[in-house]
Amino acid sequence: MNTLGNIFKVHSFGESHGPYVGAIIDGCPAGLKLDMQAIQQAVDKRKTGQHDFSSSRKEDDIVEIVSGVFEGRTLGSPICILIKNKDARPADYDDIKNVYRPGHADFTYDKKYGLRDYRGGGRSSIRITAPMVAAGAIAKQYIQTQNDIVCNAFVSQIGSAFLDVSAVQEVGLTSAEQLYLKTSGLNSISPDFTAAAQQLIAAAGALGDTLGGSVSMLIENLPVGLGEPIFGKVQAQLAHAMMSINTVKAISFGDGIKTAAKRGSENNDAFYNADGAIATKTNHHAGILGGMTSGNRLLFSIYFKPITSIKKEQETVNSDAAELSIRIEGRHDVCAVPRAVPIVEAYAQIVLADLILQNTYAKI
Amino acid sequence: MNTLGNIFKVHSFGESHGPYVGAIIDGCPAGLKLDMQAIQQAVDKRKTGQHDFSSSRKEDDIVEIVSGVFEGRTLGSPICILIKNKDARPADYDDIKNVYRPGHADFTYDKKYGLRDYRGGGRSSIRITAPMVAAGAIAKQYIQTQNDIVCNAFVSQIGSAFLDVSAVQEVGLTSAEQLYLKTSGLNSISPDFTAAAQQLIAAAGALGDTLGGSVSMLIENLPVGLGEPIFGKVQAQLAHAMMSINTVKAISFGDGIKTAAKRGSENNDAFYNADGAIATKTNHHAGILGGMTSGNRLLFSIYFKPITSIKKEQETVNSDAAELSIRIEGRHDVCAVPRAVPIVEAYAQIVLADLILQNTYAKI
Amino acid sequence: MNTLGNIFKVHSFGESHGPYVGAIIDGCPAGLKLDMQAIQQAVDKRKTGQHDFSSSRKEDDIVEIVSGVFEGRTLGSPICILIKNKDARPADYDDIKNVYRPGHADFTYDKKYGLRDYRGGGRSSIRITAPMVAAGAIAKQYIQTQNDIVCNAFVSQIGSAFLDVSAVQEVGLTSAEQLYLKTSGLNSISPDFTAAAQQLIAAAGALGDTLGGSVSMLIENLPVGLGEPIFGKVQAQLAHAMMSINTVKAISFGDGIKTAAKRGSENNDAFYNADGAIATKTNHHAGILGGMTSGNRLLFSIYFKPITSIKKEQETVNSDAAELSIRIEGRHDVCAVPRAVPIVEAYAQIVLADLILQNTYAKI
Amino acid sequence: MNTLGNIFKVHSFGESHGPYVGAIIDGCPAGLKLDMQAIQQAVDKRKTGQHDFSSSRKEDDIVEIVSGVFEGRTLGSPICILIKNKDARPADYDDIKNVYRPGHADFTYDKKYGLRDYRGGGRSSIRITAPMVAAGAIAKQYIQTQNDIVCNAFVSQIGSAFLDVSAVQEVGLTSAEQLYLKTSGLNSISPDFTAAAQQLIAAAGALGDTLGGSVSMLIENLPVGLGEPIFGKVQAQLAHAMMSINTVKAISFGDGIKTAAKRGSENNDAFYNADGAIATKTNHHAGILGGMTSGNRLLFSIYFKPITSIKKEQETVNSDAAELSIRIEGRHDVCAVPRAVPIVEAYAQIVLADLILQNTYAKI
Repeated sequence: MNTLGNIFKVHSFGESHGPYVGAIIDGCPAGLKLDMQAIQQAVDKRKTGQHDFSSSRKEDDIVEIVSGVFEGRTLGSPICILIKNKDARPADYDDIKNVYRPGHADFTYDKKYGLRDYRGGGRSSIRITAPMVAAGAIAKQYIQTQNDIVCNAFVSQIGSAFLDVSAVQEVGLTSAEQLYLKTSGLNSISPDFTAAAQQLIAAAGALGDTLGGSVSMLIENLPVGLGEPIFGKVQAQLAHAMMSINTVKAISFGDGIKTAAKRGSENNDAFYNADGAIATKTNHHAGILGGMTSGNRLLFSIYFKPITSIKKEQETVNSDAAELSIRIEGRHDVCAVPRAVPIVEAYAQIVLADLILQNTYAKI
Repeated sequence: MNTLGNIFKVHSFGESHGPYVGAIIDGCPAGLKLDMQAIQQAVDKRKTGQHDFSSSRKEDDIVEIVSGVFEGRTLGSPICILIKNKDARPADYDDIKNVYRPGHADFTYDKKYGLRDYRGGGRSSIRITAPMVAAGAIAKQYIQTQNDIVCNAFVSQIGSAFLDVSAVQEVGLTSAEQLYLKTSGLNSISPDFTAAAQQLIAAAGALGDTLGGSVSMLIENLPVGLGEPIFGKVQAQLAHAMMSINTVKAISFGDGIKTAAKRGSENNDAFYNADGAIATKTNHHAGILGGMTSGNRLLFSIYFKPITSIKKEQETVNSDAAELSIRIEGRHDVCAVPRAVPIVEAYAQIVLADLILQNTYAKI
Repeated sequence: MNTLGNIFKVHSFGESHGPYVGAIIDGCPAGLKLDMQAIQQAVDKRKTGQHDFSSSRKEDDIVEIVSGVFEGRTLGSPICILIKNKDARPADYDDIKNVYRPGHADFTYDKKYGLRDYRGGGRSSIRITAPMVAAGAIAKQYIQTQNDIVCNAFVSQIGSAFLDVSAVQEVGLTSAEQLYLKTSGLNSISPDFTAAAQQLIAAAGALGDTLGGSVSMLIENLPVGLGEPIFGKVQAQLAHAMMSINTVKAISFGDGIKTAAKRGSENNDAFYNADGAIATKTNHHAGILGGMTSGNRLLFSIYFKPITSIKKEQETVNSDAAELSIRIEGRHDVCAVPRAVPIVEAYAQIVLADLILQNTYAKI
Repeated sequence: MNTLGNIFKVHSFGESHGPYVGAIIDGCPAGLKLDMQAIQQAVDKRKTGQHDFSSSRKEDDIVEIVSGVFEGRTLGSPICILIKNKDARPADYDDIKNVYRPGHADFTYDKKYGLRDYRGGGRSSIRITAPMVAAGAIAKQYIQTQNDIVCNAFVSQIGSAFLDVSAVQEVGLTSAEQLYLKTSGLNSISPDFTAAAQQLIAAAGALGDTLGGSVSMLIENLPVGLGEPIFGKVQAQLAHAMMSINTVKAISFGDGIKTAAKRGSENNDAFYNADGAIATKTNHHAGILGGMTSGNRLLFSIYFKPITSIKKEQETVNSDAAELSIRIEGRHDVCAVPRAVPIVEAYAQIVLADLILQNTYAKI
């Protein structure tokens, strides 16, 4: 249950304040030439401390690959990725050793396992995604040997600031949006939205409060037929991966929830002959038909609750059920949504690599 | 990829117009006394033809259990469930043999597999859920030997008619709502909502059009600690199962999407000492903390697109990419959402049985 | 745990005296044209009653395929195989309802599961291999679309009559041996051995006793590189499958046990240039190097204990631990080894189909 | 395919001359207090250099556990075990970079994957068992919290020197044998056998040659009912694990191969009432009935081919199929069988931990 994927499998391990967090890829085909710099860059992108609105914890997060690669190429054997945990200050966590922080996993971990590593969230920390992002970067490099699939995730909501993504679903990202996405600190596609979001973040931060939001993912140039009926549908595999990311509370494909209020005649997409190929005139189906990719743009959005570690005083209990109040100090983000973008991309890349491999034996 | 579950595994098989649809449960513990009547009733509940707004196809859907049960009790060996396909009129489908119906899986199946059973959707038909519902009824009987978990799914949206479920999330169903749910043809908890929904269905049906909507699921009396970090989180396992149901486009836990617009201080639920036990004063977390059940009410909603088989004329192509227009005749529902309720319950019961078994070896 | 295979997966179900025994293949690629007659013939070959030394139970064993096949070709969806159980005379088993037959699974099933289907062995009956043989025949047809692999299993020991298989390992079957194998009732390659074996069977049968023996399997025309290090080695996957067959007590690859007494210099096979290709001069490695196929002949032998259902009086206990003596009446073979040949072939074909599919993503 | 086990899963990774070899245990229940010294001792036992007949390569093999353990107890999260590769002299391997050593995996790895880590066997090296032995030691500690199961493996053959294990199967190890096993450098139970074996090893070593042999494993105090019909039989799971060990060519349960020559009346074990419990008078079934443990002693033997790295000149080819002759220098054992004993024990312990966990949900 610590593994993502069926053929391109990624086993996760590590706690936030143990010696290492890591991941093993089992199932990456042999002969893939790895671009180590691209892997490191992907991991750097999720690091804390790169935005002024995020926590000040310093981590170098140097990716070490200690198996499965020889002379720069994958061997077909498991690829073990290690990232050292540094800058740990366990004393920061002594106060909350026996206290159940509201909204956190402390209580449920203790009840399920009878004990927990209370230092910084331990296994429940978002830090365990760091090696997963490295694994996603390897998945991306594998995908590129097979397909021209392009994935772009971007922030589409911060608190009460929203971005309408319906144009993205129908026609993709404009070049201006693509350019802005690469350079904007907030991992967004719109300057106006970014400005509004930054204002909200500043306001919430000033109050010691936190914000949620959403990330949308656009996948283009997909081949037709990825996805495995009945329980390996592309939306089911993506939903499983995305709902595994901390604080995600919802996933919606295409217009998603709005689709539920439409009529069939509005929502169906007519097929037509596009220079000999079969395509749809509209993309209400958001790239998925019958659980498989249709070749059209796939778009989904995932929704994050606000970070639970707020600086305001909160009522809670300790492990003896004694009531008390706490104030969570230390280095915490106001809004984690921008930093989730590389994580969402990594998980999607892993699912896509897996879907491509699953599809290799669909027919004789 | 035709299997739901990890320990309580259900293998699905069958096409809508082959001899049988079926399912095998592998992993049901031995010694469970089966209530055969309850299994049949669950399957009857999803049958077409029971509501005046649904299709007129007649199916008896008699559940046959042909293995794994001896003298009324489970043997610990695989339980094979067969349901005969009757009343098949393949000639109904001759017109669409080579035609790709808009919004359907015809095109993607053909591209992925190089062929498809074009009769009535074949493998992509919702009919394959019939034996899954039987499997869910068995899962429910297993759960009842272990826990007092109660699952209630109900329609929470039909087209533009919505039901606010926040009270259900905080305090559960009232006895009036429970009673209405048992007796209402629409599988809803509110007479007002039902009336509004029925009007919308009638209006859409008169135009040969269809409607989508949503189903919400309330799970009560959950133990603390079901769910397996990191990739077996309760929300991830439920999302995987629910996104495997045809036409589901989104899943949202608790306030879900609305949560993304809230502040941490609004969304965190304070723990308190409830007569010695630990509980939360509010339930914004909708019963899930850190990917595990918290013991509080778990509520999620899933969103269905409108049925794609509309009676209006539609533009499309055939398998040679030649453009043409079709009008889909035959027996089709205006809105499938009410009939999805027993399916959602069955899939949730299977996931819960699996979660309970997964949890048996969490600690020594 | 009722599934054989990883990608080409076969789920087994059914008890010997329930309505059906069956199997589902999940993972057979789409588009395979099935030869239904060949499937039925394979199943006929394992039927009881075809040799004069085997039990007189009459079974028609008609293979029904009720899903996954459309217009004679596989759909890519699960293929469900059903075989009706006929000619059941449960009354035959009333005497042993609460009695633990020596050497049988009665005792362990009861202890593990708390109950068992006591009629004819129930789930532990060799009868459950009938649909597995059909699945193996389908696996064979899939393999033939990919490779010229040839599998021949034959009886190599009955009681104290042995056949030396070292020549088979080095040079394969002679055409005389192949011809004899097709026509001999005993599924053997040698008339002398057959005569000796038949004499032993007759002698043991006259005493109400039973015999064990061995079956050897020769696989030729294998490609290089099937098998997945570290825990999917070709010998490990074959051993797992073969040790799943009732009454098998040992498996030995190549000279197997004799190899353990040799020196490295005797056992190593020198590589040489065989008209541009790389081959070995000798085949002490029996076609496996480093857990993968080398391209040379793969030979293994499996060893069966004598059938436990003897007609002599035996001491035992009942489920209350009361001591008593029994005499097992009814229709039972003297020696099951010849009838195991089609089962061994089927299981090997399933493993080979799986190995071929596993190998599709070894390298980019 | 680099994973051993189903619930107590061990993922293997690493090449012999990369930075680390390692393993991850996913599925060890939380709350297990680890005896780190016992883990290190198990790994020390398999180290090269401890016997005068084995290779002189020096490895410290310090076990590092970098996740899944907190304050000395397991957390329920994956336990990552790392062992640094030291004393690597890759230059030793330059000569054989493009040469296929007879009996080795060089040729098949190259063909399957298109490349290989040629340094010291890379992934195919027996060195990858070092962290598996650590994992086995953890499995053993878990088992001890559940059962009094006792595992003893010992050398039962070296070249032409054999040990008769039938008394061990019937009555277990004498106290003299147990004592000798703990102290003898050869991991054997008999001084006479040890003396004979050492003479054979010395003689073969003097000629630059190598020897094979066998290891037998006795498991006592087993509960009744471990093992999962149909494809998780105890013998199938053990065979799968054992056949994954390098150079193992055969596995035989109980009298194994000899059983095939016996009559049913000789081989059946009569049940009797043993002070109220049910037991068998003899143990020809070697502790397994119907694929499940019977509670009696389980004994199996596995057979190793002689080490392929001999010091004699051998004919072979390089990767261009050019013929040449090689002489393998460097540090290699004459006979690896004694060093296989802790490996066999570790793999058996992992399988047993897994079997115990599998059995937790056999019945309600």
